[in-house]
Amino acid sequence: MDVIEIIRAKRDGGELTPEQIDWVIDAYTRGAVAEEQMSALAMAVFLRGMNRAEVARWTEAMLASGERLDFSDLERPTTDKHSTGGVGDKITLPLTPTVAACGAAVPQLSGRGLGHTGGTLDKLESVPGWRASLSTDEMRAVLADTGGVICAAGEGLAPADRKLYALRDVTGTVESIPLISASIMSKKLAEGTGALVLDVKAGSGAFMKDVDSARELARTMVDIGTDHGVRTVALITDMSVPLGRQVGNALEVAESVEVLSGGGPADVVELTVALAREMLAAAGLTPGENGVKDPAEALKDGSALESWKRLIRAQGGDPDAPLPVAAERRTVLAPATGTVTRLDAYQVGLAAWRLGAGRARKEDAVSFGAGVTLHAKPGERVAAGEPLFTLHADEAERFERGAAALEGAFDIDPDGVFEPGPIVIDRIA
Amino acid sequence: MDVIEIIRAKRDGGELTPEQIDWVIDAYTRGAVAEEQMSALAMAVFLRGMNRAEVARWTEAMLASGERLDFSDLERPTTDKHSTGGVGDKITLPLTPTVAACGAAVPQLSGRGLGHTGGTLDKLESVPGWRASLSTDEMRAVLADTGGVICAAGEGLAPADRKLYALRDVTGTVESIPLISASIMSKKLAEGTGALVLDVKAGSGAFMKDVDSARELARTMVDIGTDHGVRTVALITDMSVPLGRQVGNALEVAESVEVLSGGGPADVVELTVALAREMLAAAGLTPGENGVKDPAEALKDGSALESWKRLIRAQGGDPDAPLPVAAERRTVLAPATGTVTRLDAYQVGLAAWRLGAGRARKEDAVSFGAGVTLHAKPGERVAAGEPLFTLHADEAERFERGAAALEGAFDIDPDGVFEPGPIVIDRIA
Repeated sequence: MDVIEIIRAKRDGGELTPEQIDWVIDAYTRGAVAEEQMSALAMAVFLRGMNRAEVARWTEAMLASGERLDFSDLERPTTDKHSTGGVGDKITLPLTPTVAACGAAVPQLSGRGLGHTGGTLDKLESVPGWRASLSTDEMRAVLADTGGVICAAGEGLAPADRKLYALRDVTGTVESIPLISASIMSKKLAEGTGALVLDVKAGSGAFMKDVDSARELARTMVDIGTDHGVRTVALITDMSVPLGRQVGNALEVAESVEVLSGGGPADVVELTVALAREMLAAAGLTPGENGVKDPAEALKDGSALESWKRLIRAQGGDPDAPLPVAAERRTVLAPATGTVTRLDAYQVGLAAWRLGAGRARKEDAVSFGAGVTLHAKPGERVAAGEPLFTLHADEAERFERGAAALEGAFDIDPDGVFEPGPIVIDRIA
Repeated sequence: MDVIEIIRAKRDGGELTPEQIDWVIDAYTRGAVAEEQMSALAMAVFLRGMNRAEVARWTEAMLASGERLDFSDLERPTTDKHSTGGVGDKITLPLTPTVAACGAAVPQLSGRGLGHTGGTLDKLESVPGWRASLSTDEMRAVLADTGGVICAAGEGLAPADRKLYALRDVTGTVESIPLISASIMSKKLAEGTGALVLDVKAGSGAFMKDVDSARELARTMVDIGTDHGVRTVALITDMSVPLGRQVGNALEVAESVEVLSGGGPADVVELTVALAREMLAAAGLTPGENGVKDPAEALKDGSALESWKRLIRAQGGDPDAPLPVAAERRTVLAPATGTVTRLDAYQVGLAAWRLGAGRARKEDAVSFGAGVTLHAKPGERVAAGEPLFTLHADEAERFERGAAALEGAFDIDPDGVFEPGPIVIDRIA
């Protein structure tokens, strides 16, 4: 096999053979194909695409580059969710304990935030004592004991993806549907879940800005999961507006606990319940049968909150300890009276990032208390001079650039009417 | 400036700004842009192209990465030729001394062969004693003294191109008209010639297989030269059939000396004279005026041969020493009687390469004596059992693979008629 021949084949619009894909992924992982060669191939894939067979094989080859977990000996069926990431997207936090409380097991490997969307591990690390890194044995023990586990993926899972993702990040080849799909699915398949629900977000705060692109990404990933024998379903969900009222690490944990306690913002509750029902169905569990609970009931009756506390404690966290709070706060007031008719998710995410909630480089630390509180969401009325946003940061000098990101992020219309659309836009199975 | 932003701009089909191009070439040369980033950008340029302004600036930036020679203080005007490379393309060897004999100065920076086309420096190194590497001062002295110099480009000329060319070679990004044009022209402009004639080859033995691609490459390079104040003209010439009857290093030197002695194959003479006249015209010299000689006359009256001997001696070579001869020879006989109606240049080049005339990797040595002698060219008749090719190699075990490359490389038609087309297909100014 010759890597230049493979690059040229894709560059000229050809289909890569299974043998070419297996060889190039293995050779790249071993270092026999150089970074600059894989980078040229990634750009060729970006611009020329891959068909269903190629993407499936590419995923398979990345999966084969490392170990694959197996939880089939657990008493409960496994089911997991993956979100493509959004602003205020804390859904994993209420969702995992809720699904565990309903009767399934949720082996959730999560990531950290980079850029304007937050990462689940960063959020949970704001809980005093909680730790993200578990050995495979620890992960299995927590999962068997509590019905859920949220942790960082081990080094041994899909090492080809780890290497390729770092390369794509610095070579302008991230936003490719085949490469994104293969990256996500190789990790999720390595995780060993029996069922998978994908939350593919569409809108300004999401990776996919329009619904058609989100559908294409969802279809590609569902096909890969199905081709690998994992029951996979995708929901296309709205990310034009931030989820909930809190954006930031500890801020989102607090809001998640509200949801787990039976309260919280309607949109977060609605999406948590919709995803939880899909996860149970994909795992073959029916609420009302064999002691399986409905997610909405678990949120109301305290069992989801109890499950949350068990999960947090099992990974060293104290669910009753006070959460970190930012050292400084500043309020942005509504400039006019009227109905909020637009609130741009991307700009809110950017503001939270600038306030310290996110990181610019992988090695940066995040501020647990930093973020943005939204006092009025689209469809709600405000009066001029009332609080519109509260900004949280550890250093006051961050406020200027944080507030600047919010300029033009909203519209207030004195006579405006806003009917929020559905959170779940479509379902791809 | 952010390299990822630049990669993404080109990836998405945008036009790079002059500032982006200057920055990325400089940063790459300094090592601040990584090989894998430049490789992704090269693939994006390959697939998205560059317009005239972008190519001109890219060339300018590579030129600015190193020193630029200046021969404007010479008594004679400078003029040079660049060929995109072909099989049996020894034209630089008779051309440079001929143009020098006619009254111009030819500062010819040449390269080595890689793949199926030979390199001028490899050919000349078969002359005992001749050396390719000269300091800038030596180059100037030889040029002033003899009217011509053929040598390797110094490390200081267009170092960005040197680095980028090596990268393109291993990343499947060679065959891009904007990148080829910028690469060739940055070196030629750095060489400091006042006029330039491009021999852009089209056909199976050339880089550009069809005339339209050759025209596009020629147009792009002529525009760059013109934009940089160098009088530039391109001839599109035929490379479907090898030039002359000898393919290989010392074999081509011997054939060139025949041409310089007033004999030699008609096609080599025709192309040498055509290019020489263009070079003189581009330098503002008119045969018959101010002692300027016509190239055809210089080949006939012995002055071109005298000029060749001076050039060779000035670089340490002995023009009268016997040339190296391969240790082994094998003859391929004509399988039928008839007219040769096709002789594929690429396959002949591949045969010579396999016999040892070329190199697979930059660090390989070439065999000076190896190559192929063509006993019948298209339009000529052969009888079954007469010699068709003579193969030359230092090791007899090379003959099998060399001969295999020639299978199917020719057609012999008992009733066939073949009218050779013109060598010069088009002229772009």
